[in-house]
Amino acid sequence: MYTIGIDLGGTNIVSAVVNDEYEIIATSKTKTNSPRSAEEIFDDIAKVTLEAIEKAGLTINDIESVGLGTPGTVNGEGVIEFANNLVFNNVPAKQMLIDRLGIEKVYIENDANCAALGEAYAGVGNGAKDFVAVTLGTGVGSGVIVGGKIVNGVNYAGGECGHMVIVVDGEQCTCGRKGCWEAYASATALINQTKAAMEENPDSVMHKIAAEEGKVSGRTAFDAMRKGDIAGIKVVDQYIKYVACGLINIINALQPEIICVGGGICNEGETLMKPLRKYIEAERYSIYSKIQTKVVKAQLGNDAGVIGAAILNKVKD
Amino acid sequence: MYTIGIDLGGTNIVSAVVNDEYEIIATSKTKTNSPRSAEEIFDDIAKVTLEAIEKAGLTINDIESVGLGTPGTVNGEGVIEFANNLVFNNVPAKQMLIDRLGIEKVYIENDANCAALGEAYAGVGNGAKDFVAVTLGTGVGSGVIVGGKIVNGVNYAGGECGHMVIVVDGEQCTCGRKGCWEAYASATALINQTKAAMEENPDSVMHKIAAEEGKVSGRTAFDAMRKGDIAGIKVVDQYIKYVACGLINIINALQPEIICVGGGICNEGETLMKPLRKYIEAERYSIYSKIQTKVVKAQLGNDAGVIGAAILNKVKD
Repeated sequence: MYTIGIDLGGTNIVSAVVNDEYEIIATSKTKTNSPRSAEEIFDDIAKVTLEAIEKAGLTINDIESVGLGTPGTVNGEGVIEFANNLVFNNVPAKQMLIDRLGIEKVYIENDANCAALGEAYAGVGNGAKDFVAVTLGTGVGSGVIVGGKIVNGVNYAGGECGHMVIVVDGEQCTCGRKGCWEAYASATALINQTKAAMEENPDSVMHKIAAEEGKVSGRTAFDAMRKGDIAGIKVVDQYIKYVACGLINIINALQPEIICVGGGICNEGETLMKPLRKYIEAERYSIYSKIQTKVVKAQLGNDAGVIGAAILNKVKD
Repeated sequence: MYTIGIDLGGTNIVSAVVNDEYEIIATSKTKTNSPRSAEEIFDDIAKVTLEAIEKAGLTINDIESVGLGTPGTVNGEGVIEFANNLVFNNVPAKQMLIDRLGIEKVYIENDANCAALGEAYAGVGNGAKDFVAVTLGTGVGSGVIVGGKIVNGVNYAGGECGHMVIVVDGEQCTCGRKGCWEAYASATALINQTKAAMEENPDSVMHKIAAEEGKVSGRTAFDAMRKGDIAGIKVVDQYIKYVACGLINIINALQPEIICVGGGICNEGETLMKPLRKYIEAERYSIYSKIQTKVVKAQLGNDAGVIGAAILNKVKD
């Protein structure tokens, strides 16, 4: 049998047909064009889903279940309670998909949790039952899986490891707290740290790199480091320490089998991962344990979300 | 049927017979007299266990299972890999109890996890499946329960929420990291914070209170606060903020149904709990959710450990 995984993003809607081996057989996509009414957006979701099924050479009768990943908070009844970037409030997503597709087995879940699930089951997790996925992007997203199940918490708002404070009274976070991990370890934070270092170091090669690129990015300090720039080296080292700090916090609390780290910054590969592991190995509470949490780079990229959505049926019943 | 719960502590060994309603029917105890050989200690554990069974008017045939809570790291085979305050290394605790009691169903678990389990099932948790117990003592201990199961992690070292950093490069922690929650929110930390404030405020009433008591304790600043002492008020407020910071971190990551807070400091009751809840309500990520994690005072005190050990059979099979 086949399942459908849908990624409802702020920019694109992607629907994919996935087989029992967690492989994507066919996809179809369209622009989200948010803000629009939920009715219109779900009409388009149904449309691209039927297109993907047709591309796969299948019919709706071949589809066992449908899973949808969405930004925001999704409750146990499949209602999107709140998704600020889609301007959604109490959208009955599950029922709207049932109505449009005629399939009863429909699952709705937060997109970061879907991505974690995808990586855990079909990606770098290789079926790990205790797994955390962290994404270093505009913010720091995370999905926590314990005993093979997504940790939604009592109010479906669980898994926000990016909003654990690592610096009491530190940098202002968008969530209202001060000093969240996200405010130090996101790509946005790295860019701010790079800009601050550039201001303090007018002779740093970071100025030249940023001028050539037309902007300061998450790569600027890394590129400067590769040229031996002292200020760039310092920015990268401090940033990796911040990333490590939050990862060690997660390890000490949960000791998952695997933590995977994703997001654009991870394109640095071992330049990021090697020193990151070094800090983690030196500091984790379980320093003397024979078995340790593996810290690895995410594997599936953007596919993690649709694959995770497609296998929600495996963890939600 | 009845089960046995044993609390193997650094000072005392307590064995209790517990019934199906999680009530303690009879107990027996002896001094641990550590350091001694594991053989001698386990002989005494068997002795007090048989005494407790006799006190309950039962025989060994009435006992369904035996659970033991111990400091340190316990692996999946019931071996205490390491317990530094008992000077234990790779002690085959499960087999040693089977040999001495002739009961096959034996479970060994970390003591903080047992206490969490006791509170979750028989205490303030009232059967909550997603539950975290935090103890503010010499350190900050914690046990994490997700989906009704103890979160041991891949190496049985999970649940160390006290060793999540809340101040990067902050106070030195005993674990080797700097800035752990434990270094700010333990009773030990409160005493250090009180001493520092006394040094800065020679006119504070804390000096008189400490002199009368013969020492600076976790109560000194609270007592000064009750007398309107400005320095005492500041110490208590800052301490409660530190406690709240770590609790909010746990809430944002896991959104458990209930977090219970125990340890000597909790004798302050609502003097501690009310401002603590206020900080948590203002800052948690789920600020708009209709359902929220309840933050409550632990209920079972020292009984949590033996009751939790006695019900390990319910969560470990």
